Amino acid sequence: MTVHLVGAGPGDPGLITARGLDLIRTCDALVYDRLVARELVDEAPAGAIRISRESLSQDEIDELLVAWGRRRLEVVRLKGGDPFVFGRGGEEALALARAGIPFEVVPGISSLAAVPAAAGIPITHRGLASQVTAVSGHDDATLDYEWLARSRGTIIVFMGLERLGAIANGLVGAGKDAATPAAVVARGTTDEQRVAVASLATIAEAARKLESPALLVVGDVVRVRSLLAEPATRELLSA
Amino acid sequence: MTVHLVGAGPGDPGLITARGLDLIRTCDALVYDRLVARELVDEAPAGAIRISRESLSQDEIDELLVAWGRRRLEVVRLKGGDPFVFGRGGEEALALARAGIPFEVVPGISSLAAVPAAAGIPITHRGLASQVTAVSGHDDATLDYEWLARSRGTIIVFMGLERLGAIANGLVGAGKDAATPAAVVARGTTDEQRVAVASLATIAEAARKLESPALLVVGDVVRVRSLLAEPATRELLSA
Repeated sequence: MTVHLVGAGPGDPGLITARGLDLIRTCDALVYDRLVARELVDEAPAGAIRISRESLSQDEIDELLVAWGRRRLEVVRLKGGDPFVFGRGGEEALALARAGIPFEVVPGISSLAAVPAAAGIPITHRGLASQVTAVSGHDDATLDYEWLARSRGTIIVFMGLERLGAIANGLVGAGKDAATPAAVVARGTTDEQRVAVASLATIAEAARKLESPALLVVGDVVRVRSLLAEPATRELLSA
Repeated sequence: MTVHLVGAGPGDPGLITARGLDLIRTCDALVYDRLVARELVDEAPAGAIRISRESLSQDEIDELLVAWGRRRLEVVRLKGGDPFVFGRGGEEALALARAGIPFEVVPGISSLAAVPAAAGIPITHRGLASQVTAVSGHDDATLDYEWLARSRGTIIVFMGLERLGAIANGLVGAGKDAATPAAVVARGTTDEQRVAVASLATIAEAARKLESPALLVVGDVVRVRSLLAEPATRELLSA
């Protein structure tokens, strides 16, 4: 094996997989995303090449992985979250496959469930939601609000912080109850985690001071958070 | 901290998180799901209590976690996949919260993306799918086929193997194109992984010899698998 597309997880360096960490510790070269925890980059051997992907275009990354793969280097391409969940890992895998370079995908903990979990929100919960839909809010104009509004389950929006007002309005405009519980979790699982909880109608205002990366969670599961909060709050709520 | 609800990942023991593995290695007591890799159970200290959850009801598990939590034991509740993705982790967390026992949730790699990935299928992929919906097929009569059939993205069905024919028929009957690519991945990420690829119309027949646990993937992303397959196959397909 030469090129490993490895998920770094959602932020907390302890949430990388055991196998992913082993690969970093023995690699010849590491190409890492901007949002990957510094602690993980520091796990690479002292002699390893380390390159932040920030300075590179997607084509340049693909070319670099292929070139290093040809030289039979042990390459770790360390990506935030999971490579195959809004991570463009498929594109890098295809570039390697086309070039005939052996590669593998080592999944990571996606923000999808881990970031809500870090805020006390299970994305599925018996009696509240038995399905979940994840979308990208990066280009909110492409979202099918009519369809999303009729979801019986949890809705998770990645990369939606910049367009939060438009997304909430889109859902409410398409018939989603304005009182539906909603949460924004910014920098989830890290020491800088911030959470805003409100209704769909008011979430954009409640989250206006939060910073990317952030995840929007819409649905009744958000109510579980108050039950899993600190003991004092808990007693009040379960009284 | 006393009780840790830890995700074991989808099957491959290397896919537990670094933090989850550390917790197992230092715990006083371990309660584990049947499908959790034996290698992970064996990582618990020699003196630790180990209990398979198979012999226990959900209420009995909740009571055990609370009782051990009260005694200030370091308890790991090791669950397949992720505790908060079709894992009933929310129920265990609520039982602990109600009893005032300190606990934490350590996410695991869910089958949701990792099992398709192990079969060469990204659940999102630029130009093919920018959204994903995950449902439980355990009680297929509760599925909203009319709504699911109009999804523009990938559909993932957990625990749907027993009802595969009914689920595929339900989607096609609600208007989903019978030619939509579909895959069933059984025992994904383990040495016993088996994959069936077909159309939605024929997937139940193609997967009839596969065994649980299995995940159904429906959508154009299934086509990426053929491009990420072995080199010989790949050349043929990309020619």
